[in-house]
Amino acid sequence: MSTTNHQVRLAARPTGLPKPSDWNIVEEPLPAPGEGEFVVAISHLSLDPAMRGWMNAGASYIDPVEVGDVMRAAGVGQVIASEHPGFPVDSYVYGTFGIQEWALSDGRGVLRIDPSLAPIATYLGTLGMTGMTAYFGLLDTGAMKEGDTVVVSGAAGAVGSVVGQIAKIKGAGRVVGIAGGAEKCRWLVEELGFDAAIDYKAEDVRIALRTAAPDRIDVYFDNVGGEILDAALTRLARGARIVICGAVSQYNATDGVQGPANYLSLLVSRASMTGMVVFDFAPKFREAAGEIAGWMQDGSLISREDIVEGGVAAFNETLLKLFAGENIGKLVLKV
Amino acid sequence: MSTTNHQVRLAARPTGLPKPSDWNIVEEPLPAPGEGEFVVAISHLSLDPAMRGWMNAGASYIDPVEVGDVMRAAGVGQVIASEHPGFPVDSYVYGTFGIQEWALSDGRGVLRIDPSLAPIATYLGTLGMTGMTAYFGLLDTGAMKEGDTVVVSGAAGAVGSVVGQIAKIKGAGRVVGIAGGAEKCRWLVEELGFDAAIDYKAEDVRIALRTAAPDRIDVYFDNVGGEILDAALTRLARGARIVICGAVSQYNATDGVQGPANYLSLLVSRASMTGMVVFDFAPKFREAAGEIAGWMQDGSLISREDIVEGGVAAFNETLLKLFAGENIGKLVLKV
Repeated sequence: MSTTNHQVRLAARPTGLPKPSDWNIVEEPLPAPGEGEFVVAISHLSLDPAMRGWMNAGASYIDPVEVGDVMRAAGVGQVIASEHPGFPVDSYVYGTFGIQEWALSDGRGVLRIDPSLAPIATYLGTLGMTGMTAYFGLLDTGAMKEGDTVVVSGAAGAVGSVVGQIAKIKGAGRVVGIAGGAEKCRWLVEELGFDAAIDYKAEDVRIALRTAAPDRIDVYFDNVGGEILDAALTRLARGARIVICGAVSQYNATDGVQGPANYLSLLVSRASMTGMVVFDFAPKFREAAGEIAGWMQDGSLISREDIVEGGVAAFNETLLKLFAGENIGKLVLKV
Repeated sequence: MSTTNHQVRLAARPTGLPKPSDWNIVEEPLPAPGEGEFVVAISHLSLDPAMRGWMNAGASYIDPVEVGDVMRAAGVGQVIASEHPGFPVDSYVYGTFGIQEWALSDGRGVLRIDPSLAPIATYLGTLGMTGMTAYFGLLDTGAMKEGDTVVVSGAAGAVGSVVGQIAKIKGAGRVVGIAGGAEKCRWLVEELGFDAAIDYKAEDVRIALRTAAPDRIDVYFDNVGGEILDAALTRLARGARIVICGAVSQYNATDGVQGPANYLSLLVSRASMTGMVVFDFAPKFREAAGEIAGWMQDGSLISREDIVEGGVAAFNETLLKLFAGENIGKLVLKV
């Protein structure tokens, strides 16, 4: 057992895309667990677009990471030393452990996970917060009904790829993904069963939606904001629901967020745009995860993780893959 | 009885604010009613911000007015000749008669009104579509609950002034109006019973809302869009509902609509933004009008009309008062 822990701490609040100098990689001795504590050897860390918001000062749906703090991140790993009866040595756990190699925990907010049901990294994605976000955003906030046309942006990402698959499983009439690049679009249609995919890098999304969503859009699940949100607003069906899950195109904007200029189509279409934060649905996570695990077991839902090797030192460069749209599926950093 | 009818017909689709040359004022002989028809002497015409949208080409919640057509407008008047048993001579009526002095009608979409209950122009405002818009926008789309903080923009206008009063009647905890000018703000607080008013011409709305809505906003009823919508977005309570009723600040924009840059606070606040069109609530109009009439009779709701003399020839200059924010209460053109 190593006696040194490497941590990634916020050195400065980034302007625009985070850069290496915004972080300090520090070495700390690994403490032994006290009464009611345990130590986790973190094996995988979750990288999410929302992390960019946590780096900013000011109130949001969650407190910011303070300068000097270990960067907040969800992780999975194995208990290697324990003075806590609920988390014995060798058990596998999920928690908000931060970007580091080892975590000392008192068990608050930590869940035990079962590596025999799915690969451990899946608990950061499809069986974790991104899967929950997709499930509740689509079915609860988006109130998807059988026969609906569902359009999702960031469709090859961790959340979007699950949104589209759950929509098909739940009887959507048509599921359209918007993603960047031919490879992602092929994957959505050929592997995941989307009815159509629009490559926003090669097509005018507004025009492509006329063909891809001929009956207009009942549920638009937005992960990206910006011009793609504006394009979707031009194709709403009467009573459409827009789910605002994220806005990855805007998180690094240095000259202000681009508001949706076409928002008045909410009026024309008697449509709604609603923000969702996954934590609000925590009391129903267990049930949803069970349903998703069933779909994975019977093959109706494919979970894909984009696992990057490199350890915590590779955090910043790996995170940038999200904003460059380079990942397919859930982006995970292997420690 | 005059044998000549003056009509205002769309001559050209306006760019920006409509100007006199966008209209033709034509004289036409007044036809006699055929079987099943009647002639209305129009006494008052309704002027509404939404008219600006009807002048544009393209699909909206209602067909555009075509170049050459009489401008669409709701009006009230008295039947002066009739071959229709349902609308005898001397009866008072409401209908979409257009900007003209007389209208020939077959009765479709026309309602008889009772001038003994309220002044006839009130049927264009508080007892008409603007009252219905306020009622259903606040209570149905906005789902206002007792104790809510309600903020309304365009608060001294036809819809806004009724929204605030209904909110008070229905038990809102706090009602704040946003309007332009000290006179309007005084009227809202001293005459209509708003708890506070913000003069957007003299105050920074974003800062003023901190004091005026200390518990944040549960329902924001938006008539204006633009910077005021963006300011309201910074003060949402958890689960807030934004009602998009109109965007008078944007209707004459020649360089595109300004989208709400702060729309991501929908996510932070788990809030929604929903468009409403009053016609969708038509089956419930009668019941709502009865309730509103009761409030007017017991003095708990004040209806104010800003009646401009001048006849149909004054249509364009009178309409511009709406976009300059010069009216208090419902703007009505007396024929």
